[in-house]
Amino acid sequence: MPIVRIEIGEHSKEQKRELIQKVSKVVVEVLKEPKSNCMVLLKEIPDENWGVGGETVEELEIKYRK
Amino acid sequence: MPIVRIEIGEHSKEQKRELIQKVSKVVVEVLKEPKSNCMVLLKEIPDENWGVGGETVEELEIKYRK
Amino acid sequence: MPIVRIEIGEHSKEQKRELIQKVSKVVVEVLKEPKSNCMVLLKEIPDENWGVGGETVEELEIKYRK
Amino acid sequence: MPIVRIEIGEHSKEQKRELIQKVSKVVVEVLKEPKSNCMVLLKEIPDENWGVGGETVEELEIKYRK
Amino acid sequence: MPIVRIEIGEHSKEQKRELIQKVSKVVVEVLKEPKSNCMVLLKEIPDENWGVGGETVEELEIKYRK
Amino acid sequence: MPIVRIEIGEHSKEQKRELIQKVSKVVVEVLKEPKSNCMVLLKEIPDENWGVGGETVEELEIKYRK
Repeated sequence: MPIVRIEIGEHSKEQKRELIQKVSKVVVEVLKEPKSNCMVLLKEIPDENWGVGGETVEELEIKYRK
Repeated sequence: MPIVRIEIGEHSKEQKRELIQKVSKVVVEVLKEPKSNCMVLLKEIPDENWGVGGETVEELEIKYRK
Repeated sequence: MPIVRIEIGEHSKEQKRELIQKVSKVVVEVLKEPKSNCMVLLKEIPDENWGVGGETVEELEIKYRK
Repeated sequence: MPIVRIEIGEHSKEQKRELIQKVSKVVVEVLKEPKSNCMVLLKEIPDENWGVGGETVEELEIKYRK
Repeated sequence: MPIVRIEIGEHSKEQKRELIQKVSKVVVEVLKEPKSNCMVLLKEIPDENWGVGGETVEELEIKYRK
Repeated sequence: MPIVRIEIGEHSKEQKRELIQKVSKVVVEVLKEPKSNCMVLLKEIPDENWGVGGETVEELEIKYRK
């Protein structure tokens, strides 16, 4: 019955599907649980709502892209 | 001061209002707290971000609708 | 498949069981889901880790008990 | 490595930036950690998904605005 | 910078280490991020605080062990 | 009505009180909300349940202490 939540930036549907698939597989293997029991929820956080070291990811991307 | 978070698929405003109303009522009854203290936050998770048994709800709905 | 998380102070096993039972019932009724699909997780937060208006619940209880 | 999550109503990009900046600063000062280690995630909750005392913030705003 | 949270029952230190290791590996592979960026937090939920279908895991284990 | 959750390692009661106090102050200042509305919840994560880059903080501390 493990519940997995993953906070990430925005990603394509394809990558999200792969993430759900592979994380579920690994979690049930380690915990020896039936695969159907594993839930994965992805939370996509916009760059302006995510801060690292006091700056938003939006600001950091502008800074380091230069 | 209980804080309730409910992760659900997307729902109508009417159902969400009913959910907040009834869950708050039950929580304060059991915990014997004043009703004004109870907070409920609904998180609507898109079908492509929610995985069960390694597949997204989006995929599962297509599969089982057939 | 709704997932409910409730943050509360510390409570007896009996109250927690009642909370899980009644909240699950109300959630599946409103959302019209099979009852077996509903998960409820209780998080008991110690009084020294919970702040309201800048003071811990521990401090507040001492203050208002006087 | 502290991780801070703040659930708020919807706010301007400017206020969110200020929130991330100032909260990060205070957290690393108190915990004596390098600033780069602190992550802050803002979750903006729509008024219809946030309940206080059994009513949504949307309902409460209509009520008290009158 | 993905942040992974996994809610599980209580497990041995060995299994938790393996879970952190393997989940981190898979997450950074899919998202093509440097491994050092991935954080995993395990939350062990006691059986009396986890409800499935309105019953606590504690109750369910007693029921099905018979 | 902002709700702040902070995940940290284990800390003294004194530091936690200071953290709750100062974070609440800053949050209500930026959001221009009454201070009484702000809730802060601290979650202390044991070192063996917190992974960075695929290793637990417990392992990392042993490694870097040498």
